[in-house]
Amino acid sequence: MNKRIVIALGGNALGSTATEQLALTRNAAKSIVDLIAEGNEVVIAHGNGPQVGMIYLGLSTAADSGAIAADMPFPECGAMSEGYIGYHLQQAIGNELIERGIKKPVVTVVTQTVVLMDSPAFQNPTKPVGAFYSKEEADRIAWEKGYTMAEDAGRGYRQVVPSPKPVDIVEAESIKTLFNAGHVVIAVGGGGIPVFCRDGKYYGTPAVIDKDFGSELLAELLDADTLIILTTVEKVAINFNKPDQICLDDLTPSQANMYIGQNQFARGSMLPKVQAAIKFAESKPGRTCLITLLEKARDGIDGKTGTRIHQ
Amino acid sequence: MNKRIVIALGGNALGSTATEQLALTRNAAKSIVDLIAEGNEVVIAHGNGPQVGMIYLGLSTAADSGAIAADMPFPECGAMSEGYIGYHLQQAIGNELIERGIKKPVVTVVTQTVVLMDSPAFQNPTKPVGAFYSKEEADRIAWEKGYTMAEDAGRGYRQVVPSPKPVDIVEAESIKTLFNAGHVVIAVGGGGIPVFCRDGKYYGTPAVIDKDFGSELLAELLDADTLIILTTVEKVAINFNKPDQICLDDLTPSQANMYIGQNQFARGSMLPKVQAAIKFAESKPGRTCLITLLEKARDGIDGKTGTRIHQ
Repeated sequence: MNKRIVIALGGNALGSTATEQLALTRNAAKSIVDLIAEGNEVVIAHGNGPQVGMIYLGLSTAADSGAIAADMPFPECGAMSEGYIGYHLQQAIGNELIERGIKKPVVTVVTQTVVLMDSPAFQNPTKPVGAFYSKEEADRIAWEKGYTMAEDAGRGYRQVVPSPKPVDIVEAESIKTLFNAGHVVIAVGGGGIPVFCRDGKYYGTPAVIDKDFGSELLAELLDADTLIILTTVEKVAINFNKPDQICLDDLTPSQANMYIGQNQFARGSMLPKVQAAIKFAESKPGRTCLITLLEKARDGIDGKTGTRIHQ
Repeated sequence: MNKRIVIALGGNALGSTATEQLALTRNAAKSIVDLIAEGNEVVIAHGNGPQVGMIYLGLSTAADSGAIAADMPFPECGAMSEGYIGYHLQQAIGNELIERGIKKPVVTVVTQTVVLMDSPAFQNPTKPVGAFYSKEEADRIAWEKGYTMAEDAGRGYRQVVPSPKPVDIVEAESIKTLFNAGHVVIAVGGGGIPVFCRDGKYYGTPAVIDKDFGSELLAELLDADTLIILTTVEKVAINFNKPDQICLDDLTPSQANMYIGQNQFARGSMLPKVQAAIKFAESKPGRTCLITLLEKARDGIDGKTGTRIHQ
């Protein structure tokens, strides 16, 4: 009953400094290796919101002050976050495997994810990234760099970038080669570095790719049978945080869609997870998405807890 | 006559900003794909001196000013530089392959390189990294963070880190799996993220690994037959830049060692390249190291130019 599993780890679960991330990845590695120790083949995808934000803000601040020669475009900061987070994850998982005497290579693949430039998301960039600026500074930056700037929560102006859906993963074949050879692969960090395709070739573009949709796409491309989307609750619930809250164990895609229609799931939080779960479950019979806590993943795989979405 | 080639690209050849690097990697991709188009299997290793320096300096400056929560340790900055440079290289090489109608996956592997903590290099850290500080600031940083600080060229005090020889590559098996499957692999960026081994497990340590030695080690582990070390001259020369300069075409390891004994090669420049070349040539009969310009690599492989070191 060994499964081919893609795990989607949240960027917020990785902390906001290197010291925190090192400790948190070591902790996460224990639960991940629990799954591997049972014979499952595992690929780890992860978010990068706080990390890419820190890198982008840090390097643009340093460039503004003249400490470094130029600021760093957002896709390149995404690539840096893949190296940074991937390094900690591969080291932590590798060490945990060694600790348990399991001989299995662990590897991070720098991943580009393709988005469509005619996606409606590009007409309406919504994700704020980087530093806060005054109206005058924001106007100057918009003019100089071509960025879209928008007022953010009364705190000033920030660059906003689109959040388009991913449609392909450039390095899918390399990830598959490693996965099929039994390596533990870390890929699609931060949903992948956003690139668009023109005349068959790829070019970076500033965007935020939701890691749940990126992980789901990877799971389809790898022909995984299980997608585990980790979150901060053990089970998906309707009437969340209300007296009549009901935790959900098993859902069909149509049941999940019905709850979405009732606005049961929070935007930017549980909603994209359930949407990604539905997409995976509908992509092929036999595919299951499990939404649960990291430390409950093994029990969830065994059907003991978590929320499972499947046909 | 298809060869298994490891190419070592210099970090200085990649420019000092993202804009420069994007242009330079696109240019480098043409010469690299020339080799691939002839049927050779290629792995690309590269330096990261200017890039990791920029990231480390930028993020520590931003942390000092309070723009981000904490500075970033040097190994983590190395991991970021692998993501950043690897992304540009894989995109540029991938696009160039598409341009020529060659179907071949390109992939960057985040790489940890093992150094020995009892290496004499750790007793005598020599490589300055990061910002310049006053004597008082340097003393405080040394006390707070445990860094070794040293006076640098009359311009102030900087952190100094050791430059130990690499002894193993943690991700060697993953790189080999991809290489043997015909993928173009980018690996051992900046010589690899420096890690040491304790009780079989790996941990990051601030150090600079020479990319020529890192590339050489990778070439041995992959059982490559050719190591190409790229540099800024077409051929290695003795009496370099003197009236009696002589360019070298073919060298045995013992001839090369003789010239090293005569101090013919500059420290931190041609010397490590020739030393890495000797190590590779001596590691197994039939192995050749070519030292030349990037744009002469194809002619060098055909024996028309460059300096070849072999038994």
